[in-house]
Amino acid sequence: MSVPEAPARVPPPARVGDPLSAVDTPALAVELGAFERNLARMAQEAADAAVRLRPHAKTHKCSAIARLQVAAGAVGLCCQKVGEAETLVAGGIGDVLVTNEIVRPSKLARLAALAHRARIGLCIDAEDPATAASDAAVAAGVTLGVLVEIDVGQGRCGAAPGAEAVALAARVSALPGLRLDGLQAYHGAAQHFRTARERNDAIARAAEMTRETADALAAAGLPCPVIGGAGTGTYPIEATTRLWTEIQPGSYVFMDADYAANETEAPYEHALFVLAGIISRREGHGVVDAGLKALSGESGLPLLWGVEGGRLTGLSDEHATLSLPAEVPALGETVRLIPSHCDPTVNLHDWIVAFRDGPGGAHVEAVWPIDARGAVF
Amino acid sequence: MSVPEAPARVPPPARVGDPLSAVDTPALAVELGAFERNLARMAQEAADAAVRLRPHAKTHKCSAIARLQVAAGAVGLCCQKVGEAETLVAGGIGDVLVTNEIVRPSKLARLAALAHRARIGLCIDAEDPATAASDAAVAAGVTLGVLVEIDVGQGRCGAAPGAEAVALAARVSALPGLRLDGLQAYHGAAQHFRTARERNDAIARAAEMTRETADALAAAGLPCPVIGGAGTGTYPIEATTRLWTEIQPGSYVFMDADYAANETEAPYEHALFVLAGIISRREGHGVVDAGLKALSGESGLPLLWGVEGGRLTGLSDEHATLSLPAEVPALGETVRLIPSHCDPTVNLHDWIVAFRDGPGGAHVEAVWPIDARGAVF
Repeated sequence: MSVPEAPARVPPPARVGDPLSAVDTPALAVELGAFERNLARMAQEAADAAVRLRPHAKTHKCSAIARLQVAAGAVGLCCQKVGEAETLVAGGIGDVLVTNEIVRPSKLARLAALAHRARIGLCIDAEDPATAASDAAVAAGVTLGVLVEIDVGQGRCGAAPGAEAVALAARVSALPGLRLDGLQAYHGAAQHFRTARERNDAIARAAEMTRETADALAAAGLPCPVIGGAGTGTYPIEATTRLWTEIQPGSYVFMDADYAANETEAPYEHALFVLAGIISRREGHGVVDAGLKALSGESGLPLLWGVEGGRLTGLSDEHATLSLPAEVPALGETVRLIPSHCDPTVNLHDWIVAFRDGPGGAHVEAVWPIDARGAVF
Repeated sequence: MSVPEAPARVPPPARVGDPLSAVDTPALAVELGAFERNLARMAQEAADAAVRLRPHAKTHKCSAIARLQVAAGAVGLCCQKVGEAETLVAGGIGDVLVTNEIVRPSKLARLAALAHRARIGLCIDAEDPATAASDAAVAAGVTLGVLVEIDVGQGRCGAAPGAEAVALAARVSALPGLRLDGLQAYHGAAQHFRTARERNDAIARAAEMTRETADALAAAGLPCPVIGGAGTGTYPIEATTRLWTEIQPGSYVFMDADYAANETEAPYEHALFVLAGIISRREGHGVVDAGLKALSGESGLPLLWGVEGGRLTGLSDEHATLSLPAEVPALGETVRLIPSHCDPTVNLHDWIVAFRDGPGGAHVEAVWPIDARGAVF
C-alpha cells in the first residue's frame, strides 16, 4: 500500500560565481539590480502611503525571496495554498496569510498545525468552511485569523458585500479558535485592465462595496482592523483610499510582459528572465531550448531581450522559434527571454539563478531553491 | 561558492487503495482502464503497420509509464532533453533517442556518459553540433547514434531536405564516435491540424521530401536504416507510406482536449484528468483549487468531465471558475477536469495518481513519480 520514494529534484543549473554564459539552459534567472530596486521601491511606496506591505509569495514561491521582503519591511507574506504556507513557515516567515478559501478538513488541520509556529490567517467566504476552520483550530489548540472575503467585482470567490458578509463575520466572531481580523477585498482581474481609467473605475467600485461592508461591520459592533487586497496593477489606487490597511502585491519583484502592457503608474523593472540556448540557427531564424515547459504560454509570447530587431515567432512544448535578423546571437549562445506571465513561469522551475549585470559582465551571485514549486495542495 | 541543498519534492497526494474522493487536490490522475486500452491499441496499430513503436516520453516524463510502454512492445523511448534521457536510463530503459538538437558540450558529455549504460541516439541538423557530438563520444569512449533531422514543413529545427541533409549525413558518417542511423522527419504542427485533409496534405509533402532525401542518401552510398517521426495526430498517415520505420507518438497514452478537437482517425480515450476540489460555491457558480499551476492554459480552457450542463468559465493562477447549473457537485467535492494540453500539464506535477473506474467506485492503484518533471536541461 506504499508509494515510491520521491525522486530528487533536478540539480541547480549554475554555481555561485559562474559567468551568466556558463549557466545551463533553460534556466530561470533574476537580475539582482532591478530586483533590489523593485523591492526597495515597493517598501518605500507602502511606507509613504502608510499601508502595511504583505507581499504575495504565489509569485516567487521562494522562501529566500520572502526573507528579503521581510528584511525590507514587509509585515509578513501572503500565499494561496497551505503547501506554500508550510514552506514559508519552514523558511522562517513568522506571519502568513492564505488569501484563499480552504475547505477540506485535512488541509485545515495542516494549516492549524502551522499556527503553533507562526501567526496564520486565511480567507473565508461561507459558513460551512468557517465551522470547519474552527473545528481544526480547536483540535490543534490554536487560533486562526480570518478575513471574510467579499467579491468586489472579480466574480470568483467571496461572499456578497454588505449583509451577507456581515452575517458571516458575526458567525466567525462567535466560533471558537477563530479571530475575526477583518475583510479581504481583492480585485484580481483589475490588475490587468490595460488603461488607468479602467483600473481606477474598477477599484472605485470595489472601494464603495468595501466601505459599505466595513461600515456595516462597525454598526454591528464587529471588529475590522484589517482590510487586505491590492496587487501590482492597482495598489496605488487602493493605497490612496485610506480604506485598505494591507496591500498584497506579488509581481512587482519580477514584472512580466503582461504587466508591462499596462499603462503603468508605478513603474517596476523587468528583473525576471528565462535563459535559453540557441540549438538551431540559419539565416534570419533561430530555435532555443525553452518552450512551454520553461515559459508559460497563456498570456502570449515572451519577449526577446536585448537583441535588436529580434523577436519570438512561436512557442511549442520544448522550443521557441526566433526571428534573428543579424548574425549574433549565434548557435550555442544564450539569450534572455522576458516571460509573458511571471507567476506560472516561476512555478515551472526548481531553481532561480540570481545574477547581477555590471561592467565586468553578468555573474551568478546566488542560486535559490524555489522551495514551494509545485506546492499547489 | 555553494548552492543550498535541494528541498524535497512535494509529497504524494494519495495512497494506494484510497477512494478517489480522498485524493488531495489538485492532483494529476490517470484512469487505468482507458490508459491500458490506449497502450494496447497503439502497440497493435504499430504491429499491424510493421513499424517500430518508440513512444515519446516528453508527454509523461515518467519512467514507470515508459517501462509499461516497453513491456507492451515499444523498441525504446524517445525524449527531448538530456535530463529526460538520464531519468529514463536510470529507470531501466535501454534504448533512448533524443529527438532534438543538443549543442552545448556539457550536455553532450552527459549524453555520451549515458551511452555506457544504454543505446543512445540524438538528432543533428548542422555540422558544428556534429563535430561537438563526435568529440563528446570520443572523449567518453562510446558511440552515439545520429539521425540527421530534416525540416519537412514544421519550420523549426532541421537541415534542408536533399543536398544539405546528404552533405551533413556524409560528415556524420565520417566522424569518429558517431553512427549514422538515418533521418528524423517530424512535422509537429501537422499533429494539430484540425481536418484529416490538412493532415494528409502536410504529411504527403513531408513524405515527398523525406523520400527524396532517403533516395539521395542511397545514391551517395550512405546508410539510412531508420526514418523516425510521426505523432499521435498523424502516425496512421506516416505508417502507410512504408517510408517511416519508427513512429514516435506521445499523447496517445493520455489524450487531451486539443487532440480531441481533431477529426480523429484513430480514436484514443481521455485517460488524463486533473482532480480539483470545489472551494467556493453559490447558485450556478463554483470555484475549484486548480489553476494555471495545475493545468497549462495556452491551448484554451480545460473541459469539465461528467457534470451535465457544467463547464469551465475561466482559469487564473490558482483557480478555475465553473458554471454549475445543478446543486451537485457541492462545496468540498472533487471534480475531474480534462486538460487542454497534456504535455505541459503533466510537467506541472510531481506525481500521477493511477486509479481505475469500476462498479465499486474509483480507487487508487498506484502513485507514480513524474521523475523527469522539470528535466528541461
